[in-house]
Amino acid sequence: MTVSRSPRVVIVGAGFGGLKAAQLLARSGVEILLIDRNNYHTFVPLLYQVAVAELEPEQIAYPVRRILRRIPNARFVMAEVKQIDFAGQVVETEDSAISYDFLILATGSKSQYLGVPGAREYTLPMKTLEEAVALRNHIFSCFEQAVREKDATQRQQLLTFVIVGGGPTGVELAGALVELMHGPLVKDYPTLDLQQVRVILLQSGDRLVAEYPQRLGDYTQKQLRTRGVKVHLQAKVSQVTPQAVHLQDGTTILAKTIIWTAGVEASPPPPTGELFPSAKGKVAVLPTLQLPNQPQVYAIGDVADVEYKGQPLPAVAPVAIQQGASVANNIKRQLRGLSPQTFRYKDKGRAAIIARNAGVAQTDKLTLMGFPGWFLWLGIHLYYLPGLRNSLLVFISWVCDYLFGDRFVRLIFPQSTFLGIQSPPFAATDDHQPGAKQNIG
Amino acid sequence: MTVSRSPRVVIVGAGFGGLKAAQLLARSGVEILLIDRNNYHTFVPLLYQVAVAELEPEQIAYPVRRILRRIPNARFVMAEVKQIDFAGQVVETEDSAISYDFLILATGSKSQYLGVPGAREYTLPMKTLEEAVALRNHIFSCFEQAVREKDATQRQQLLTFVIVGGGPTGVELAGALVELMHGPLVKDYPTLDLQQVRVILLQSGDRLVAEYPQRLGDYTQKQLRTRGVKVHLQAKVSQVTPQAVHLQDGTTILAKTIIWTAGVEASPPPPTGELFPSAKGKVAVLPTLQLPNQPQVYAIGDVADVEYKGQPLPAVAPVAIQQGASVANNIKRQLRGLSPQTFRYKDKGRAAIIARNAGVAQTDKLTLMGFPGWFLWLGIHLYYLPGLRNSLLVFISWVCDYLFGDRFVRLIFPQSTFLGIQSPPFAATDDHQPGAKQNIG
Repeated sequence: MTVSRSPRVVIVGAGFGGLKAAQLLARSGVEILLIDRNNYHTFVPLLYQVAVAELEPEQIAYPVRRILRRIPNARFVMAEVKQIDFAGQVVETEDSAISYDFLILATGSKSQYLGVPGAREYTLPMKTLEEAVALRNHIFSCFEQAVREKDATQRQQLLTFVIVGGGPTGVELAGALVELMHGPLVKDYPTLDLQQVRVILLQSGDRLVAEYPQRLGDYTQKQLRTRGVKVHLQAKVSQVTPQAVHLQDGTTILAKTIIWTAGVEASPPPPTGELFPSAKGKVAVLPTLQLPNQPQVYAIGDVADVEYKGQPLPAVAPVAIQQGASVANNIKRQLRGLSPQTFRYKDKGRAAIIARNAGVAQTDKLTLMGFPGWFLWLGIHLYYLPGLRNSLLVFISWVCDYLFGDRFVRLIFPQSTFLGIQSPPFAATDDHQPGAKQNIG
Repeated sequence: MTVSRSPRVVIVGAGFGGLKAAQLLARSGVEILLIDRNNYHTFVPLLYQVAVAELEPEQIAYPVRRILRRIPNARFVMAEVKQIDFAGQVVETEDSAISYDFLILATGSKSQYLGVPGAREYTLPMKTLEEAVALRNHIFSCFEQAVREKDATQRQQLLTFVIVGGGPTGVELAGALVELMHGPLVKDYPTLDLQQVRVILLQSGDRLVAEYPQRLGDYTQKQLRTRGVKVHLQAKVSQVTPQAVHLQDGTTILAKTIIWTAGVEASPPPPTGELFPSAKGKVAVLPTLQLPNQPQVYAIGDVADVEYKGQPLPAVAPVAIQQGASVANNIKRQLRGLSPQTFRYKDKGRAAIIARNAGVAQTDKLTLMGFPGWFLWLGIHLYYLPGLRNSLLVFISWVCDYLFGDRFVRLIFPQSTFLGIQSPPFAATDDHQPGAKQNIG
């Protein structure tokens, strides 16, 4: 460690955990260097509302540099980490080598495909802002194609939307999708028979939102079914093809849209080898969140392998935030020559939204269903969303949606946004034999 | 014309003119078929505010199908027109052939490069939502690169922003850019010497906003210069290269960002041959806006060649809207066996915004400068922006910007949005010899 300058803390990842650590290290005498591949923080819990045309992507993205303005001892580097040299204490990006005294790995998670053949290639993920916008484009492209499609089977396929995974994300997306399709889209596509529209939620286990008490799961399932979602329990996906999802029980569901929310795995930076990869590619850490062989290096959030009551901690914002705070405190202690403290998770409970006026929430004290759960969910997310302007815009978007029962961001942005994300419908247009034109009217 | 069904009016283009025509043909006994390559209407006058991170792109885009909900006799087809068969009265898209009884061409305009070598390849346009977002990405990418760039010349180049064209669009963009760079970006990039930032406006003529009275042009120039824009009059661009813009007087300005607002030309659908192309590729029309040899076919907006007081009408929304209304009325007359009427343009004046509290506006009655002109401009655009929600969101965005003097949409969305749009800085990173890493700190 050079003595000529104040010790440098390098944070990789500007998610909930990384930002919290940076904020709590403000004015602490260290130099903070925050690295992220994007120049914005993504408010992941609202991603699905971007996908269903409820919110603009910019409303849930927040410029990192604006957050860092209040942290005078912090700098931002927009880059992708290519390699970490633990021996030399250097983080390498494409065009720079950044030395560190302390390192916080907060690189989050990516979709986990559980080894299902075709899942990675033929399902749409929803982990990033780019993917959420691509999903929005995809959904509305399916309707634009369906309204022109003369073949009934093809049309049915275009109007079938399968969501794999019955956790909170899958539930929230299913509820929002079915509302979109039975509300605004009925008005948008008067010539289309919307009885054909199917929103199918596939859950491998025997109940939805398994981390919630049984009765909340039952309520969730009842709500979704009442609103038109076809919920299939014990539905294990065996294979995904460009046009269909196949289940272990032999069922085949033809669909142009298969969305994957069935789980996440850590996305640690290279070299994973030295990071003692554990379950789901996570980074093994000590109770203090330090790496076993690297007292100067911490891992937090989705990327850290931490258990709580015998279960791995869920990949949610509160965990990352609490760990970011704990690590910031531990680094301050190390600088004062004190030993880092064990991370203790405080479970504040959980909340999920199902659909209009219907949500579930649970804390150690109370359990909420229906309108109270829905209202609490909205309040929590509005409270935690960074930025007054964003909060205002999101609030207005929600009010307009609630009053007019409409979704206003029904925009298909140019296909360029599909880059890197496979898009069945657009691929499907190639099926048309050239020159085979349909006559309208 | 088949008698079995009501006559069909096909409108190509969902811009200001096409939508106005559709709205006025509502419940008129005709069948309306509106064709556009996008499923949204773009509020073009505010595009530059998307480019400077003031507004979200979705705030100035509006779903066409939502507008058509109020027009029961209208249908929408999202497609690109490939060919028009005037003899057979058929509009052909990639996968359909659409017959028409009446046809309205409202296909708008595209950038005009005046035959300047390299202009098309190496300047950034700002005619579509996609291009405005790409420009936003580009501007902030330049700053992210500049903050890491050790070479002074390279850095100067990254921080030089040239706008070609001193019309309203160029003026509005220049004013907004200089505000962005001397305001929010100073706070975002404390380590960057923002004395290096240059916003240069190149005008080929001897004054800015030439269609306004002299003193408004002078005021505009004075305002821009006071706020830090380098205004060059009589500056004729002779060539554009990937790294610089060259003027006829021999001057060379090194810049990674060269934005082209120097003019537009019509973008008529094929076959242009039969459309009697006239000046700037426009479609020649009769005083009734009918095509000379096609009494059932009209052209409106930027694509139609119409003169007013000896000058071609400007490519602005009011012209398109008035022409859309006139054509709707003419088609109704033709259906009643009456002859179409001559289009008469009513000049309601013009308004342009320069920067905070500074605008120019002119009608036949009054001439406004400074705050009144600025306030009028905001009011007009808020009034004409389609959709209550969008108006609310834009209003809040403007208020937040005004109160906090900040731009909140400073997001660099993934490079995929650059597809089809060249991006000097990203190309420039290839200059780095591999492995030549800089050490940070």
